[in-house]
Amino acid sequence: MKPAPRHSHDSNPAAAVRDGALAAELATLVPLGEVISEGGRLRDACSDATESRGLRGATAALVLPGSAAEVAAVMAWCYERDVPIFTRGGGTGLAGGAVPDGGIVLSLEGMHAIRAVDPGQWRMEAEAGVRTARVQRVARENGLLFPPDPGAGEQSTLGGNIATNAGGPHAFKYGVTGSWVTGLEVVLPPGDVVTIGGPVRKDVAGFDLLHLMTGSEGTLGVITAAWLRLVPAPEAQTIVVGFYDDVESGCSAVADVMGSGLQPAVLEYLDAGALAASIGSFPFAAPGDPAFAVIAEVDGSAAEVEAAATEVVAAMSAAAVGDALRLSGRRDARSLWGWRDGVSIAVNAQRGGKVSEDIVVPVDRLADAIRGTLAIGERHGLPACSWGHAGDGNIHASFLIEPGNGDELARAERAAGETFDLAIELGGSISGEHGIGSLKTGWVEPALGPALVRAQGEIKRTFDPKLLLNPGKKVPIAGPRDAGATESGPGGGRAGVR
Amino acid sequence: MKPAPRHSHDSNPAAAVRDGALAAELATLVPLGEVISEGGRLRDACSDATESRGLRGATAALVLPGSAAEVAAVMAWCYERDVPIFTRGGGTGLAGGAVPDGGIVLSLEGMHAIRAVDPGQWRMEAEAGVRTARVQRVARENGLLFPPDPGAGEQSTLGGNIATNAGGPHAFKYGVTGSWVTGLEVVLPPGDVVTIGGPVRKDVAGFDLLHLMTGSEGTLGVITAAWLRLVPAPEAQTIVVGFYDDVESGCSAVADVMGSGLQPAVLEYLDAGALAASIGSFPFAAPGDPAFAVIAEVDGSAAEVEAAATEVVAAMSAAAVGDALRLSGRRDARSLWGWRDGVSIAVNAQRGGKVSEDIVVPVDRLADAIRGTLAIGERHGLPACSWGHAGDGNIHASFLIEPGNGDELARAERAAGETFDLAIELGGSISGEHGIGSLKTGWVEPALGPALVRAQGEIKRTFDPKLLLNPGKKVPIAGPRDAGATESGPGGGRAGVR
Repeated sequence: MKPAPRHSHDSNPAAAVRDGALAAELATLVPLGEVISEGGRLRDACSDATESRGLRGATAALVLPGSAAEVAAVMAWCYERDVPIFTRGGGTGLAGGAVPDGGIVLSLEGMHAIRAVDPGQWRMEAEAGVRTARVQRVARENGLLFPPDPGAGEQSTLGGNIATNAGGPHAFKYGVTGSWVTGLEVVLPPGDVVTIGGPVRKDVAGFDLLHLMTGSEGTLGVITAAWLRLVPAPEAQTIVVGFYDDVESGCSAVADVMGSGLQPAVLEYLDAGALAASIGSFPFAAPGDPAFAVIAEVDGSAAEVEAAATEVVAAMSAAAVGDALRLSGRRDARSLWGWRDGVSIAVNAQRGGKVSEDIVVPVDRLADAIRGTLAIGERHGLPACSWGHAGDGNIHASFLIEPGNGDELARAERAAGETFDLAIELGGSISGEHGIGSLKTGWVEPALGPALVRAQGEIKRTFDPKLLLNPGKKVPIAGPRDAGATESGPGGGRAGVR
Repeated sequence: MKPAPRHSHDSNPAAAVRDGALAAELATLVPLGEVISEGGRLRDACSDATESRGLRGATAALVLPGSAAEVAAVMAWCYERDVPIFTRGGGTGLAGGAVPDGGIVLSLEGMHAIRAVDPGQWRMEAEAGVRTARVQRVARENGLLFPPDPGAGEQSTLGGNIATNAGGPHAFKYGVTGSWVTGLEVVLPPGDVVTIGGPVRKDVAGFDLLHLMTGSEGTLGVITAAWLRLVPAPEAQTIVVGFYDDVESGCSAVADVMGSGLQPAVLEYLDAGALAASIGSFPFAAPGDPAFAVIAEVDGSAAEVEAAATEVVAAMSAAAVGDALRLSGRRDARSLWGWRDGVSIAVNAQRGGKVSEDIVVPVDRLADAIRGTLAIGERHGLPACSWGHAGDGNIHASFLIEPGNGDELARAERAAGETFDLAIELGGSISGEHGIGSLKTGWVEPALGPALVRAQGEIKRTFDPKLLLNPGKKVPIAGPRDAGATESGPGGGRAGVR
């Protein structure tokens, strides 16, 4: 077992960042930006959405560059001085990918320009710090759709979404964030601004570095802007909700929708525990105590949606408690998705805390994954539940804990680890959309095997030979200060979380 | 200028492959397969669709393994003996990617099983040697759609399509081949069978090696099988064809369709020269001597298609010669696409030969690229024309030549080079779907810049440290026998073609 990662500034070997003159020196590199070396904003930059799981880091400075050239200058400065760079978007990550371990935090929040919108060409060029919801709004205002819809859209940033290849409910029809990126402006070590792809819709001139950078969680380069592909906004949407008596009948409804010949935009589910936590605020009529819910959305032209909704209602009603509910109009849709966005918080509120992971399985193993999660919770004496993107086989397996109860947290972390084993056993993967961050590096080798892990490590060294970009995240590779230590085994990445 | 690449078996340094016992030795490695060391099949394996441009190689043996384990055994044998491996699918490539330069040709045609079709999960698992058209047919028989439709579907293979990330007309709505691959079985040097992804629809456990392998043209590993994502087949299609007096009005029709709020599945064009070559066999009524044609297809439910077709006809008729033509039913669609598939051959037949490249530009620069191609032809005294995927800004810029006329071929190759300059100048890329092969390696650095070319070279060495996989293709990197030679500049990759 390798020693616990040192989540503290004190252990940082870069003497430069302890220097009181640090902020002033960094500030000269970012005249359009800002450097913060104390106070609440610095503290806020030391955690992300994993703070409830005890994850919090430390850093010497929060740097907010105002341009790609400033990012390059900061990277060059850090690369010369062996200072780790922890890149940060909106801080909504669920895997600890933005939690610093010394060095500096490089926040892209200062780069929030939408550089170009070309409605006629279904295109947008936006900086990394633009909020996801703003990208969606601007697209919509131009009659277009930017389909990716990970949660927390008002906080998360485009750059963070790309760095994690974020998903969301509409990924079922439209694919994940990476499907919508045609170009990236990236700063590569030791400080070069490069463009990969651009405002073109196809490009096979080189290896697909665009997708390699997407989802690499800031470990290969710093994304400063992106060219996005958009599509004409669908004219209409209809949502159908069905409630079921058990996991089997719910999953058979999912199968019936997938076998109907239609392609819904969304196909979600909630199990009994997730419903128990959230049904109180469900904005429409619902049976008491439902054990399972399926949510489908169809979109397209008004005529198409009308026809499709009738078929989806039929497919979802066969095994349902009563008839499936059909919601129409924007107001109903807003209510439903507003409620759905709150499910994670409602589940958390049950006991005050939770440990949640987002495994993915082949969709025919969905019921096994849902039941497996409950069995794991039972083994560890913790209430468990799940919900998520049924059509993508992507489930948010959650174990409920009391805040501050170290024993429960430890059991929940072990339970989460068992969900990774379950996913691998079912032919799936340890993460569908949240990424690896620092929480899951120990499970990457069991999931991918040694050959791919070795290839990943070499790719990491190709782009970041000093291993200064988000060290300890995504790739199970020994950082510069871990030289000589063994690579982390399962659980290694999780140790030492405070 | 580096010396001309040696496209001959004699220059191959691997003594092993000259040995008469070679075929027998290789045959022991592929008991389920075949080894061919002479005759017509060996000769056929020495060229691809670039033969008309004078490209032909030589090789010692054509090896057709029958399983991934056999591919691994052959690779291990070659890796031990420094024997280059030229991987081959259907041999329909347009960039010389499958033309051997010594070593052995590894054909995947012997691996043609469809391992699984899961209609309920919208999935298929198929080996690399399955023909593209068969993948499409099997999907369709199960009520599903495999959308990629590069030309030559009865000859090209799934593995070749993935290795080149092939496109086609329907890529406009549905994306290129890589958008439909969720998993790959790949043999990596020195001979390991690995699985990347699988039957899951989302996966962010590692760097995106799936897309890295896709489009890498056999230079990083040998793809032996793939898991494909499918979608429910649309109920109906309608095709609309408009004819125009000039490039401007044709391109304005393309813009009008893109501005209509609809998302067609296909948006193609042909310019005057492409039409002059092909209009004689156009299966419907057409005006005499049209200067430009636009083809759109809409798909979806019958009701949706009906409504959309009316709008597309209106958008395409505004600037058209007469009204745009609306084609309905499967028979009309088959006729139209059959004719469209023959355009390249018809253009070739004009003078007996052509040099054609597939540059891609931002769609607002489409007219500039089309006119620019004509101007380049004029400068080099060659008839020129183009056609292609208008909505994707992907144009097949072609220069017509007499076969055997070395001077014309040389001028056409220079003209093709200028289309690459044009694409780069217009903010585009040197290839939208054909790939780099051996023909375009000299233009990769001007297109991508030194930083990305360096990264590509390092990625290549990570996967294939001996540089034995498709040497001389895709990446502008000196092969083992070119050690000490300078990397090729523009034109370098093209020199020495026979």
